[in-house]
Amino acid sequence: MKKRMLLLIALVATAALPAMSQTPEAAPKPKHKVVFELNAQAPSGWDQLFHNVDNILKIFGSEGVQVEVVFFGKGLRMLLKTNAEYADRLKAAADKGVTLAACQNSMRALKVTTEDLFPFAAQVDSGVAELVRKQEAGFAYIKGGE
Amino acid sequence: MKKRMLLLIALVATAALPAMSQTPEAAPKPKHKVVFELNAQAPSGWDQLFHNVDNILKIFGSEGVQVEVVFFGKGLRMLLKTNAEYADRLKAAADKGVTLAACQNSMRALKVTTEDLFPFAAQVDSGVAELVRKQEAGFAYIKGGE
Amino acid sequence: MKKRMLLLIALVATAALPAMSQTPEAAPKPKHKVVFELNAQAPSGWDQLFHNVDNILKIFGSEGVQVEVVFFGKGLRMLLKTNAEYADRLKAAADKGVTLAACQNSMRALKVTTEDLFPFAAQVDSGVAELVRKQEAGFAYIKGGE
Repeated sequence: MKKRMLLLIALVATAALPAMSQTPEAAPKPKHKVVFELNAQAPSGWDQLFHNVDNILKIFGSEGVQVEVVFFGKGLRMLLKTNAEYADRLKAAADKGVTLAACQNSMRALKVTTEDLFPFAAQVDSGVAELVRKQEAGFAYIKGGE
Repeated sequence: MKKRMLLLIALVATAALPAMSQTPEAAPKPKHKVVFELNAQAPSGWDQLFHNVDNILKIFGSEGVQVEVVFFGKGLRMLLKTNAEYADRLKAAADKGVTLAACQNSMRALKVTTEDLFPFAAQVDSGVAELVRKQEAGFAYIKGGE
Repeated sequence: MKKRMLLLIALVATAALPAMSQTPEAAPKPKHKVVFELNAQAPSGWDQLFHNVDNILKIFGSEGVQVEVVFFGKGLRMLLKTNAEYADRLKAAADKGVTLAACQNSMRALKVTTEDLFPFAAQVDSGVAELVRKQEAGFAYIKGGE
């Protein structure tokens, strides 16, 4: 009887192994992935962006969600430290895990340096290429602005 | 002999069951699926929307097509009963099977109630989340407006 | 010995046949595919379009990339021969293999004929249907303009 119990435990343990060994890879993959484009000067889409991002986080948060906003063209200005009006809301989004990515091509064109950007801003080589990469990786694409 | 016949009938009936129970799901799946975003105040994209939807229905109709338009932000106003100028065209689209979905977040923000909307309007919890869900379900995404 | 050699040659030749007959189809499939929408009047997005397309070609070129720009609505005017200001840049994009596609529905609406378009412009039955087809074929979608 004891032998059977041990066998049972062994079987259960073995069956559990794959699940256990997957644990590292099983880091929660977000079920939902969304990339926003912000490519317009204020005010088109600047205020709405926060409503949109908050909706996405609220609705999909419990299932797992990854959100990135790509800023380029005239939208890059939103990430400038001088954009004090939006600083708190941008910081709050970054704190919730939202990636706020500045396009380095736009930075060069507008003579913006890393020091000019909010410290929580990320950077990508090209905003438009980033939108392509993200769509290729299964992100839904939403163009911000009206 | 009778017994065998009964058994045969029972077998055939059982075999038929799955097919029968699938009937509701087996409704013809559309080959093409398109979701439009309408997020701008008139006139940007309001007139073009009907051209776009009609083109999609005409070109893909024979192969099967499902079309949804999601109205939010300033685009929500298009679905208000007071928007008499567009009533006939919206009704015609709805009659052709196009889903016209109002964002409930925008409704709250603009203090719009169900009674304020055209009776053929559908509602979704969040316009932007709906755009994500539809893209996840294989819909092509077209942002209306210019 | 000679017979065997001939047989060997015959075998090699036969084996090579499928590869040879596939050559035309085996043209390198682009790893990245991007479709742009240009649906706005100047200047929204007209200048940025070239930056965007050039970025895509530069960043993804070595891995293989296919780019198409679909012009409709007020964006169609960009492809008119009378649009001299943009002629060189459009021609350069076409020379790099970018498809510049005019919407025939917009052509009819604006009374534009093939002769009115730059000679390097392609044509599609419907700009919006083309955007759907391309997304169905795995193209990332970028709506140009702000």
